Amino acid sequence: MKNITSLLPIQYPIIQAGMVWVSGGKLAAASANAGILGVIGAGSMKPDLLKLHIEKAKLLTTHHERLAVNVPLLYEKSKEQLETALSLGIKIFITSAGSPKTYTTWLKSYGSTVIHVVSTPEFAKKSEQAGCDAIIAEGFEAGGHNGRDEITTFALIPQVVDAVKIPVIAAGGIADGRGIAAAMCLGAHGVQMGTRFVATEESSAHINFKNAILQSRPDSTMLMMKKSVPVRLLKNKFFEDVKSLEERGASKEDLEKLLGHGRAKSGMLDGDMIEGEIEIGQVASLIHDIPTVQKLVQKLIQEQRDSLPEKSFF
Amino acid sequence: MKNITSLLPIQYPIIQAGMVWVSGGKLAAASANAGILGVIGAGSMKPDLLKLHIEKAKLLTTHHERLAVNVPLLYEKSKEQLETALSLGIKIFITSAGSPKTYTTWLKSYGSTVIHVVSTPEFAKKSEQAGCDAIIAEGFEAGGHNGRDEITTFALIPQVVDAVKIPVIAAGGIADGRGIAAAMCLGAHGVQMGTRFVATEESSAHINFKNAILQSRPDSTMLMMKKSVPVRLLKNKFFEDVKSLEERGASKEDLEKLLGHGRAKSGMLDGDMIEGEIEIGQVASLIHDIPTVQKLVQKLIQEQRDSLPEKSFF
Repeated sequence: MKNITSLLPIQYPIIQAGMVWVSGGKLAAASANAGILGVIGAGSMKPDLLKLHIEKAKLLTTHHERLAVNVPLLYEKSKEQLETALSLGIKIFITSAGSPKTYTTWLKSYGSTVIHVVSTPEFAKKSEQAGCDAIIAEGFEAGGHNGRDEITTFALIPQVVDAVKIPVIAAGGIADGRGIAAAMCLGAHGVQMGTRFVATEESSAHINFKNAILQSRPDSTMLMMKKSVPVRLLKNKFFEDVKSLEERGASKEDLEKLLGHGRAKSGMLDGDMIEGEIEIGQVASLIHDIPTVQKLVQKLIQEQRDSLPEKSFF
Repeated sequence: MKNITSLLPIQYPIIQAGMVWVSGGKLAAASANAGILGVIGAGSMKPDLLKLHIEKAKLLTTHHERLAVNVPLLYEKSKEQLETALSLGIKIFITSAGSPKTYTTWLKSYGSTVIHVVSTPEFAKKSEQAGCDAIIAEGFEAGGHNGRDEITTFALIPQVVDAVKIPVIAAGGIADGRGIAAAMCLGAHGVQMGTRFVATEESSAHINFKNAILQSRPDSTMLMMKKSVPVRLLKNKFFEDVKSLEERGASKEDLEKLLGHGRAKSGMLDGDMIEGEIEIGQVASLIHDIPTVQKLVQKLIQEQRDSLPEKSFF
């Protein structure tokens, strides 16, 4: 079966995930230069800032065709974000946290490629019906916002692959080439990796955040706020505050007040590892270095090859 | 790297999991006949009943060397169970739910092979230090009892493989050959599958339980009782009862009273799908048939081969 290099103008079937406060123009351009899809995470950007990041990315790479924008549809300015990106020549869109019906037809009328992020086979089917070109299926172990059903990548990918005909990109739990090969054995046509790209030289994550990844342990993250907006967080003081609020049966509103945007910025961009919100995947503890994106991608390719048997495992 | 067929006298690196009320002598013998490890789940058996099941298995297969017993160490009669199995010639033991230090040296003094079940890299190291021959690393998506840290198979296996030198057997989330290949790409030397073997002709699961697997959906299971003894359950009335007790902040004792052994037997063996406790993995919804073990194993081997690329994925 063909991988997503047939659909997307990239050399290797790897997507650097769009992440709030972490994946700006610099990281996206580095990814494009390394032969993979470079995604600007628009979630934390007003349209003007998104414009600056797209322009910056276009200055830093000649591979403009490998630049994409991730737009979480729950933000009020998501339409404006999409218009901004379209006006600057972006052709590949990753939409999430909303219905795939909202903008897919409209985006495709401009010749765009649209990929929607889902966490269940049911929403994968809905995305296919809405005309999406591919889907990203994200498991429970992924960092940041997540589904309610707690379906892991191992259980999710084969079911999604069986449910749709469009290409499936696996996300959640993948931090090295072993994970890429594993996801593709499960039937995925490519992978999206987030946490791994936070710990690169070119990501805009604060160095404290990058170092926290290197120091993390297998049990350093937990999916919280399962009743309102599930999100996987690094365990720090902010996490403990969320936890005790939840244990005291706090309302959705109280929780959302604590989990405001200010906390995500102060944690991930400004490096406040105590009071800040740190969104991160379970694979953080598999990561032990902060390479350039170029070096990372070359290593991923080699690891992917090395993890496969010559012919068959048995 | 060699797979677990170097350590265990089996043809294929697959372990049919020991499961309460489901894997008696009949299922274990069918597995041994099919070339994989047949495991009698002693958790639900008094020593006398275990004796009957081992004797039954030995009548149904000539491959006595491929028979093993799984003993959860939290039961008060676990030592008696082990002695019973030893006296009947069992040479392979899978221990779980307790310290690997308790019986490993003693079991090995009889020439046994000892495999301990863990859910974190830390306990994998402790098992290696205790002298275990291999470990089974079980992810969050697995059915039945589970770890507290919610580490999924995708995140767990590479970390465990990196942490120990003894062979690692992956469990949780594997229901077909794609999953076997994926687990082995992550570095596992073999796999253990539980839920998939519940839905076979030879398992002792009640037909209602087998049919519930065929009818399950991706969101049909949930890990419950996370604060006391985490267990993944099928969502039925019993599950709802556990859930509302937990939401009302019930004590560990109240929860354990509800989750008594009687409920597991009435659900899984006697087929009460309303009031019974049904322990099952997240992959239930990937299972669509009730084959013989022989046919299943042949299919798994073929699927494993088919899911691998000719040389490399890219």
